[in-house]
Formats: sequence, C-alpha cells, structure tokens
Amino acid sequence: MERTNSSASFLASLAMRQPAFQDGIRGFRSSRVVESVGDGVEDLAPGDHVVPIFNGECGACAYCESGKTNLCGAYRVNGFKSTMASDGGTRFAVVDRSSGERRPVYHFLNTSTFAEYTVLDAGCAVKIHPKAPLHKMCLLSCGISTGVGAAWNTANVSAGSTVAVFGLGAVGLAVAEGARLRGAARIIGVDINPEKFTKGKEMGVTDFIDTKACDKPVHEVIREMTDGGVDYSFECTGINDVLREAFLSTHDGWGLTVVLGIHATPKMMPLHPMELFDGRRITGCVFGDFKGKSQLPDIVDKCMNGELKLNFDGFITHKMPFSDIHKAIKLLEEGKSLRCVLHF
Amino acid sequence: MERTNSSASFLASLAMRQPAFQDGIRGFRSSRVVESVGDGVEDLAPGDHVVPIFNGECGACAYCESGKTNLCGAYRVNGFKSTMASDGGTRFAVVDRSSGERRPVYHFLNTSTFAEYTVLDAGCAVKIHPKAPLHKMCLLSCGISTGVGAAWNTANVSAGSTVAVFGLGAVGLAVAEGARLRGAARIIGVDINPEKFTKGKEMGVTDFIDTKACDKPVHEVIREMTDGGVDYSFECTGINDVLREAFLSTHDGWGLTVVLGIHATPKMMPLHPMELFDGRRITGCVFGDFKGKSQLPDIVDKCMNGELKLNFDGFITHKMPFSDIHKAIKLLEEGKSLRCVLHF
Repeated sequence: MERTNSSASFLASLAMRQPAFQDGIRGFRSSRVVESVGDGVEDLAPGDHVVPIFNGECGACAYCESGKTNLCGAYRVNGFKSTMASDGGTRFAVVDRSSGERRPVYHFLNTSTFAEYTVLDAGCAVKIHPKAPLHKMCLLSCGISTGVGAAWNTANVSAGSTVAVFGLGAVGLAVAEGARLRGAARIIGVDINPEKFTKGKEMGVTDFIDTKACDKPVHEVIREMTDGGVDYSFECTGINDVLREAFLSTHDGWGLTVVLGIHATPKMMPLHPMELFDGRRITGCVFGDFKGKSQLPDIVDKCMNGELKLNFDGFITHKMPFSDIHKAIKLLEEGKSLRCVLHF
Repeated sequence: MERTNSSASFLASLAMRQPAFQDGIRGFRSSRVVESVGDGVEDLAPGDHVVPIFNGECGACAYCESGKTNLCGAYRVNGFKSTMASDGGTRFAVVDRSSGERRPVYHFLNTSTFAEYTVLDAGCAVKIHPKAPLHKMCLLSCGISTGVGAAWNTANVSAGSTVAVFGLGAVGLAVAEGARLRGAARIIGVDINPEKFTKGKEMGVTDFIDTKACDKPVHEVIREMTDGGVDYSFECTGINDVLREAFLSTHDGWGLTVVLGIHATPKMMPLHPMELFDGRRITGCVFGDFKGKSQLPDIVDKCMNGELKLNFDGFITHKMPFSDIHKAIKLLEEGKSLRCVLHF
C-alpha cells in the first residue's frame, strides 16, 4: 500500500487539523491549498500551499527536539495506525442513508491523500512557496525526498566518492540524483531490467550492472570495478539477498549501506555479526532523514531560485486524471512508470 | 585463542621487523624493549619501550591513509594468517636435533607475545614513553584500548548520556571506564553474574541488571529505567541473543549499538531489516577504533601527566610468573580475573 500510495503521486486537497492536545477542529476544501485550520494551528493558514508528508514533524516531542532523528513521536510511520494522532478518530465516515449509521473510513500513514478533500494533522503538512508548481512538488511527499535525502542526510555522500544503487525505481534514481548533485564520481546502477539504464543515465547513473548477465556475485563485480568496493551503497529493492550484496559491495573499513527498501519478509538480515568487524556499516533511512516541516521548504526555495537543480521532470513519466488511477497502478507494477501524477 | 592471548596480558620482549617491501632482518632480545630493528625501520630503535598490537598500522596503505578506519591493509586482524606480513615466514622454528629438520612455529594475530623474545613487524609495535610502567601499559595491547576506544572513538559517548554495557568482563568494564571519563550520566552494567557489579562500581558502572533475576526481556527493563532506552549499548559477550537485547535496549531514533564480542556462532544477526527503520544503528569495533601507532602514545603521555585518569590498576586483578600461565587461564575461564599480568 505504501508503495502504491507514494508512487502514484497526486495533488491532494487539504485541510489542517491541530495536535491532539489542543481543541480539535475540522474542515476540508479543494484545490491543493489549505481550506481551514483548527484552533491552535499557528504555522498554517487558509490559502497556504502545502505538501503532505507521511512522516510528520510535530516539532515539540523528544524526538523532534533531539536534533538526532526525523522520527517524530506523534507522527512517525506506523502502518498499523489508521486514525488521526490528534483525537484518535477518522477523517471520513460512510453514512448509511437508510439507517443513518456511520462507519469510519480509516487512513494510511498519516496522509491518505487519494481524495479531493482531506484532513491532515498540521504536523504532516509542509508549507511551501506559493509559487512552487504543486504538480511537481507532490513528488516531495516521498520518492524524491527519500532518495535524495538518503544520499544527502543519511549517507552524506561526498564529492568524488563512489556509489552503488540497487534497484532503479524512483527511489533508487532519486538516490542517484542526490549523489550526482553531491558530485559523486561514479554512480553504479544495479537492476534486473536493463531498460532502466536509459532513464538512469539521465538521472546521474554512470555505470550499469544487469544482474541477470553477471557470472559472479554482484558485489564481486562492483569490488573489481572500484578497487575494493564503493563508498556508499543503497538498497532500494526490499529483497534480503540484495541487501547482502549491497552490504558486501562497499569498501571495507568505511563503506556504508543505506537500506531504503521495504522488506516484507519475516527473515532476519543475512549478515553475520563478525562481518561488522570489517568496518562496513549499515543503517536504515526513513523519508531521507529529512525533518519535513523544517527542511523541505528550504529545498523548494532553492529549487525555485535555481540554486538546486533537482530534476523533478525526470521522475514524472506519466500524468493522468484521477479516474485513471488503476491504469497508473498497473503501469507502476509493470515497471513502466516512475511517477505518475494524478490530477482531479 | 584471541581472548586467552589478550586477557592474560604479559610483558613481551620484542625485536622489530620492517615491512615486506623492504629488506628483512631479524634479531630478538629480552626485557620489554626493542633489541634490534630491521633495515628500513625508522620510527623505532634499540632501547625503545613498545606495546605490541594485534591490529597494526603500517601508515602507508589506502586504509591507513584514508583517515576513516583503523583497519590496516597489511596488519589487520586475520585469524587465519599465521606468518609475518613482511616476508610470509615464521618467527621461530623447532629444530630436530638429530635430523636437523626445521619445523616452523606459527603465530596468531600478528603478535603472539607469549615468549620471552619475539619478532614483530614494526607496524605492530607502538613506541611509548620510556618511563611509562610496562607492567600496566601491556593492558593497552587489547582490553583497555578496545573498550575505552569503543566508547570514545566508535560511539563518541557524550557527557550526560546513558549507556548499557552487556558483559562485565575486562572489555565491558573498559567501556564503562571510557564512558565514565566522558561524563556519561548513567552506565548500566548487564551480566549473568551479580558478583561483577562490585568491581563494576569501581569502574564507573552506576546501575546493575542481573539478567537471571529479570522477569521480562532486558531491553524492556532498560527502556523503563531510561525513559525509552539508552543512547549507547555495547555488546561484549559474543552471544547473538545478547546482541539483539543490546540493540533493542537503545532509544529509537538515535540509539547506537557497538558490537565488541567475538561471535563464534554461524548464525546471522537476529535483527530484521525493518528494525533499522526505527533509527537504531549497529556497528562493529576492532581495537576501539584506535589507530595504534598514531594514537596510543598520546594516551600514554596523558595518563602520565595526569590529564587522563585511566584506571589501569582496577583491571589488574592478578599478577604471576609466566610459568603459572595455565593457572591464569583457568582464573579467566572461571570469571575470577579481569587481567592477569604474567611476568618472565
């Protein structure tokens, strides 16, 4: 569900809702701007342009105040939480016209923006420059932020370094984009689909490995290509065996593997404790380690004034009306789209 | 073997040997000082006082020059390498008096200092202040450096932080010592042997958890004690299940687990990839991430001028002649000694 939600990006209509400890309020409206805000919401006002984020930032919890993490105590990712953080209720209800019975409509990952109107906790709405094109900025809700941030914030990719990206979907290509903007000398894309390389080259990928054409483990190929391994590798597939290859493809002593893929398997990580002694590190990354409300507005501003050349257009392979959502999801499943922007 | 070697610390007699790419030379002598050096060895001279290190530092390889790791290309830990890095030969041979046949005597982890005279690659001998007491400084060869360095270099424990140490042997107590010197607010010792707490208190441990007396998983106990988990945990047992407890006992969002224990099991780490998404990190640590030749001399100097109050005496629970080595090992196996210094 998460992949579907984030990959078929769209323009959400929003209304704000204040945190749980303040008096609740409601109200929706359309057209990608804030329609109304609840009492106590001070950083947003009707008319503001916002990007909804699944990994919110309340700004007041121990996590937000620590400066060490972008996981928020109130609005962090929790696939099992389907109600508002503010009051524990739902945004919508289906009302049975005959009986008058109201049945709640639950949501997913704080946003659930496949709706023309919606309600968000204020901690999950990022106010951005009013002139930023919303049909592109919606990509910041997940894919681009996650990948670019993994390269910038989590790995802190340095100029001249070497990078391997496992899985060239939108997140993987966003990693490549982030590494390219940091001046990485070599960005090796790894995928089972060689067609991905064409798009990859546009996004900064310098070398491509088709794993199906390899006659030895990918990490051996990469070590040979890079005199011992890459400085950073990024696991964007959610496949355990790929995680191991990504880990082993980094240079011993200092290599860092960032895990971005959603691993649905119950299997534990295929890494032995002693393998940590070779100086390779591994870490997870949620939403590119961006603190959404604190950091994304500045990214948007820099994209607008040209300081930052994030290739939004490169990620948008399709645009279609919301009514074609099932077509959009099919394209995604078939690996034929990166991001399909749906509009109402 | 490694544990035995490092735990029954002793005063080694040394001679130097230069790197493989230079002309080899030999020569041993006694009394804890350099007896002779090979051609090309410039940083050591006869009469120098040295500490042998199992994780050497050549100073010239890509690893040493990277500034990112203390793993040396020439002298890093390799349990399967039992010959000199310099010429691939052995230090000693047993000569059959009747046949004249020479059989090589192999060594372990670059040092193998259970000998009155020996030969070391120069990269594995750290020159220290000539007035530093060698019967204490021998502890820097492994235990103290490893534990203290894990707190200082690997975890970078900060003042006021919370720490959990799993396994209160010498390495674990050295972690506590390092954390104490950094001003950690709370250092929780975890062990199956409550007798360890007495010694632990001397070394900076503020709280103790006897896992045998717990009615719930240790990580739950620690999270309750510390409002969500410690900032740093250190796994000093080599037990996979303990590694998991250590990992889960840190605070989500920023907790770091440092693995120091030698894990002899073929089992992979009992951590799920998705658990990395909670912002807990895990890393390995060899020799406290100290670059031995570059950094230990300064530590010794600071101990001598009083700037650093490393409690060497606290670790030395026994002293005995080398001839009692089997007694020393037995004490260690029974958990009755921390460090037993053997002298010739």
